[in-house]
Amino acid sequence: MSWNSFGRVFRFTTWGESHGLAIGAVVDGCPPGIALSEADIQPWLDKRRPGQSRFTTQRQEPDHVRILSGVFEGRTTGTPISLMIDNVDQRSKDYSEVAQAYRPGHADYAYDAKYGLRDPRGGGRSSARETASRVAAGAVARLIIPQVQIRAWVEAIGGDPIDAQAFDDAQIDANPFFCPDAAAAVRWETLVDRARKAGSSLGAVLTCEATGVPAGWGAPLYAKLDAELAAAAMSINAVKGVEIGAGFAAAANSGEGNADPMRPGAGGPAFLSNHAGGIAGGIATGQPIRLRVAFKPTSSILTPVETISRDGEATTIATKGRHDPCVGIRGVPVVEAMMALVLADQALLHRAQCG
Amino acid sequence: MSWNSFGRVFRFTTWGESHGLAIGAVVDGCPPGIALSEADIQPWLDKRRPGQSRFTTQRQEPDHVRILSGVFEGRTTGTPISLMIDNVDQRSKDYSEVAQAYRPGHADYAYDAKYGLRDPRGGGRSSARETASRVAAGAVARLIIPQVQIRAWVEAIGGDPIDAQAFDDAQIDANPFFCPDAAAAVRWETLVDRARKAGSSLGAVLTCEATGVPAGWGAPLYAKLDAELAAAAMSINAVKGVEIGAGFAAAANSGEGNADPMRPGAGGPAFLSNHAGGIAGGIATGQPIRLRVAFKPTSSILTPVETISRDGEATTIATKGRHDPCVGIRGVPVVEAMMALVLADQALLHRAQCG
Amino acid sequence: MSWNSFGRVFRFTTWGESHGLAIGAVVDGCPPGIALSEADIQPWLDKRRPGQSRFTTQRQEPDHVRILSGVFEGRTTGTPISLMIDNVDQRSKDYSEVAQAYRPGHADYAYDAKYGLRDPRGGGRSSARETASRVAAGAVARLIIPQVQIRAWVEAIGGDPIDAQAFDDAQIDANPFFCPDAAAAVRWETLVDRARKAGSSLGAVLTCEATGVPAGWGAPLYAKLDAELAAAAMSINAVKGVEIGAGFAAAANSGEGNADPMRPGAGGPAFLSNHAGGIAGGIATGQPIRLRVAFKPTSSILTPVETISRDGEATTIATKGRHDPCVGIRGVPVVEAMMALVLADQALLHRAQCG
Amino acid sequence: MSWNSFGRVFRFTTWGESHGLAIGAVVDGCPPGIALSEADIQPWLDKRRPGQSRFTTQRQEPDHVRILSGVFEGRTTGTPISLMIDNVDQRSKDYSEVAQAYRPGHADYAYDAKYGLRDPRGGGRSSARETASRVAAGAVARLIIPQVQIRAWVEAIGGDPIDAQAFDDAQIDANPFFCPDAAAAVRWETLVDRARKAGSSLGAVLTCEATGVPAGWGAPLYAKLDAELAAAAMSINAVKGVEIGAGFAAAANSGEGNADPMRPGAGGPAFLSNHAGGIAGGIATGQPIRLRVAFKPTSSILTPVETISRDGEATTIATKGRHDPCVGIRGVPVVEAMMALVLADQALLHRAQCG
Repeated sequence: MSWNSFGRVFRFTTWGESHGLAIGAVVDGCPPGIALSEADIQPWLDKRRPGQSRFTTQRQEPDHVRILSGVFEGRTTGTPISLMIDNVDQRSKDYSEVAQAYRPGHADYAYDAKYGLRDPRGGGRSSARETASRVAAGAVARLIIPQVQIRAWVEAIGGDPIDAQAFDDAQIDANPFFCPDAAAAVRWETLVDRARKAGSSLGAVLTCEATGVPAGWGAPLYAKLDAELAAAAMSINAVKGVEIGAGFAAAANSGEGNADPMRPGAGGPAFLSNHAGGIAGGIATGQPIRLRVAFKPTSSILTPVETISRDGEATTIATKGRHDPCVGIRGVPVVEAMMALVLADQALLHRAQCG
Repeated sequence: MSWNSFGRVFRFTTWGESHGLAIGAVVDGCPPGIALSEADIQPWLDKRRPGQSRFTTQRQEPDHVRILSGVFEGRTTGTPISLMIDNVDQRSKDYSEVAQAYRPGHADYAYDAKYGLRDPRGGGRSSARETASRVAAGAVARLIIPQVQIRAWVEAIGGDPIDAQAFDDAQIDANPFFCPDAAAAVRWETLVDRARKAGSSLGAVLTCEATGVPAGWGAPLYAKLDAELAAAAMSINAVKGVEIGAGFAAAANSGEGNADPMRPGAGGPAFLSNHAGGIAGGIATGQPIRLRVAFKPTSSILTPVETISRDGEATTIATKGRHDPCVGIRGVPVVEAMMALVLADQALLHRAQCG
Repeated sequence: MSWNSFGRVFRFTTWGESHGLAIGAVVDGCPPGIALSEADIQPWLDKRRPGQSRFTTQRQEPDHVRILSGVFEGRTTGTPISLMIDNVDQRSKDYSEVAQAYRPGHADYAYDAKYGLRDPRGGGRSSARETASRVAAGAVARLIIPQVQIRAWVEAIGGDPIDAQAFDDAQIDANPFFCPDAAAAVRWETLVDRARKAGSSLGAVLTCEATGVPAGWGAPLYAKLDAELAAAAMSINAVKGVEIGAGFAAAANSGEGNADPMRPGAGGPAFLSNHAGGIAGGIATGQPIRLRVAFKPTSSILTPVETISRDGEATTIATKGRHDPCVGIRGVPVVEAMMALVLADQALLHRAQCG
Repeated sequence: MSWNSFGRVFRFTTWGESHGLAIGAVVDGCPPGIALSEADIQPWLDKRRPGQSRFTTQRQEPDHVRILSGVFEGRTTGTPISLMIDNVDQRSKDYSEVAQAYRPGHADYAYDAKYGLRDPRGGGRSSARETASRVAAGAVARLIIPQVQIRAWVEAIGGDPIDAQAFDDAQIDANPFFCPDAAAAVRWETLVDRARKAGSSLGAVLTCEATGVPAGWGAPLYAKLDAELAAAAMSINAVKGVEIGAGFAAAANSGEGNADPMRPGAGGPAFLSNHAGGIAGGIATGQPIRLRVAFKPTSSILTPVETISRDGEATTIATKGRHDPCVGIRGVPVVEAMMALVLADQALLHRAQCG
């Protein structure tokens, strides 16, 4: 089945294709009385918007969001909030090549195998353009949980990591890579430029941290907070790996090394470390939630790759259109949005069961 | 909320605590007419059963499953299948210590923060004992998708990986570690014995592979096959990381290096590599599905760890009871079960939409 | 919670208020490859459209539907279908009176009690205008189940029933009341005119019949076909009663009288009667599905009714705006749409489980 | 699909067949800290238990419920509550006749058409025995909403109604019919006895009233309180009709006659009537919720009825086993349970969205 809704009580449904008339999201279950206007949403879309530096795709989309329902006199009414973003820069280019041959690494073949037909224009529904809808919905989610601070950053591009010692929060918004390490940002300019000019692409690793999450949010066993975050992250285009807290490093650690000892603290335990990434048994511990996400290099590259046509004939294909040399960069606001959407849902779920 | 169901049309709900009378699963949505008896389920439970070697917990549970409904004259009727496993070896030990102080790394504090009370006997609902219910449900799922072969193995313990060149499928069931590399299995004996004797614990990395999955299974966008697998894996106790295909390694690769070129093949494309792990755009490509999972070392260790009491006082706690020195080992049949459960659900979902 | 989605695998979500910019529905889970254009949807909206006779509200809405996604080159792609209908005739009238006092029988007080605020313009989200979105979604549903014929009619207005002996299928679309009895239609002209001129309103009873539903559709126990139809019907504005088959009359019958004996027939049993309304145990028997629905008289009347203001003061209110003298009449395409939506969902669910 | 779960955040799943080993329910999403033991559940099961008078089936089932999980030291822990009731009086009778021929009015043919096989022992899953599981789950639901009082009664049997003027609350539990009119109860003795001796059966109409429901519970649009109640009621075996408030009578009324005027009251409006049955726009108004339900006469009768065999041959069948001459009588605790289950779910949903 096509299953385009996410969330349990705070839910959103997205629709739209890369080169259709518009894309959008319907947000349902939002508490009433929250102040909401387009101005609360637009900044997050602007953060994700393409064409802002030479390190992202040159497609020009204003990504102007409109609220079509669910708000009256500036406040949410508790009814569904319909958000719509027109597609402006859908080029009337010729899609016959991509319509006839499958781009390896893209969803072209898989969609065709599933549905027997597909919209080849810019990847159709499988395009990362859909993530704008999530960012819009995520902006609403943030307003439900004002006590939570969410921020993501890029911590490696093409295998070149930041220096954790050089982490500077203020740097994240000061360079086009959402990079907290000023020196790494300089290196990445060269790295991404080289990939871009070569028509190649690079992967990236992102971290997203949420602080201020109260101990107790989460819903064992099959809606565990970490399970929901894993699903949320893995549903983003190009994501191939997810870690909570120490992640794979925990698998190489000992029980002693991986423990997070507790001391008495103000209003709850003071943890001496956070290998758990703020989640135990699927429930928030009150520590910062730490989510780490791996983005693959986009498969849209100039180098011709061996493939087959819809008729099963051998051929090659290269992606000549506009593309992101490192799609993970623009993943930052998307991962943040998914974090907000999961947490808002869990906040309401927790209130439902535990008051 | 407590949310103890998993799946969309093929669904299961689990119940039960570590030291209650029994645990169980209700499997709903199973197709009718499938031959099913306890003998189809028991072998998988036996594979997961504790106490089979000195490398797992010494709790003695026969884990004998009973089918209470949904089967008539040896065939599924399409109605819910109630599976029940009695708890036999719940020791009447004194739980006052663990009832009073939070074991770091366990869900003790988080459950208390959420619910205001908790069942401290053996971890209650947050115990890995619940995974027996999943394994039972997974055995039913396997029967729905007989065309799919699922197998998992341990590929690293405590940071010591297998030699990929030495991979021998026949070894997996020939040692107590589900280790496909005979030499690594020998090393791990020493490694795990040492941890066990020291009252310590070790993490592990598992891989699970499903072959025979038809291209087309999967459900974009928020029920993507990889997103469902990520949630399924992350919902397992002690799991902290999930990768599909190349996973985090993809983030260090280039678009060219990460591509999976296609050549004409029999009945579909012949892929020249499988960085994607058999999934593109959330839909199966027909290649083997590759899932990689990180298990942390269990937090049940003999070494006293700093913690606080329910009253907020500083104290220390050590786990004196029976425990797994490397809980990831027994994760093998659990990860396989979750793979089967996700795939069976997606198989039915695909049939619903696409016939 | 606000819960604006319906369906299990074939699902739709509606959004929009009576006097907002637009209303719409997102249809998810539609099978791929179905020919679909606005021309397949518009006729059903036209059937529901207000202002077509003096017996319905005089609000002028073209109810022009646009397909914003999910269709490529005239065929459904399996991705979500976004349907949008602009609101054109939202009058910029003064809503201060209705904003300050609760209209008895309307949802004004209940929405305020729930949400603490409400959109008073034309009833906001609680307006019957929302049913246009259902009709649009229902038009898509019909295409999934072409073997099924669905038709509804009005069988009583204001307590004046049709003569069952005079039932003439051809009459249904030949008068403004969807009345299958020509003589009753003539009586109803007078009846409804009188109510309209008096500023009063009348209730109605509708029957909806679906033929061609294969035996076997349905999903016991909590998604029984009759339970889903009951929920679908009761979710429509102004509906206060639902019957399947003989309904309440069955409660006055004996087991012998209410039996539906079976004789051998072509391709299944030939039933000698249909007290069951085509459903047994929540599953279709292959007989026509018979659903009967009671619409109350709309509460929008010119006669002042005692009420209270938001401040709790005693006052009276009369509805001066445009309104339907018998809202049940325009319920005909709405009930048909809900029947189609339930059956399409159950068709796919049946295929999922039973192939 | 088989879909054996009900509810959105407070959910239950039932399993089991009439003549299997046991039946049960898993209740998920229950708030923590609620005092719960078998003694809270058993009285409701006793109320539904067969064999208590000559007016119900003579099957002897103690219906002894056990709590298998989710409770620790007498309080709910927030984890799933597994409830189990052993089947004791499954007679080892010969089911070959009912296995070979379809009983008209029962689900025999429909189940066979759907699943291709069925459990013929006592109706298998389609037996009213399943309703014991609902009653058990409903007993838990009642504890979540202690401010609400729920009671149901029989208001007509075989077309013989009570005298509304003679309504006496104290009578309901004073006769075997849950009849609030002492004189009617006397008449019904004769009526039901006659049907019982003739091997016939009678239908019944029940009313269920919930008082103390706060204004605001409910969830527009597709989880409206009345829509959920309609689905809940229609999912009960033998139910063919559902009304809220004035129901079908509203369809014969005028807008003036059907209005529920409001006057200032203590802590909210004082309504002058309750045609709405306590629900407007799908949301509770604070008035008593009034639900009316029609039960058909059971199809288990001694009179032979024409039918066909599984092979399609003409035959006749009579039900020789134990049966209820008026199954609606024992519907009273079942309808009450479904009311409690819907309201508990809506109470938590309301808290989720509106705090």
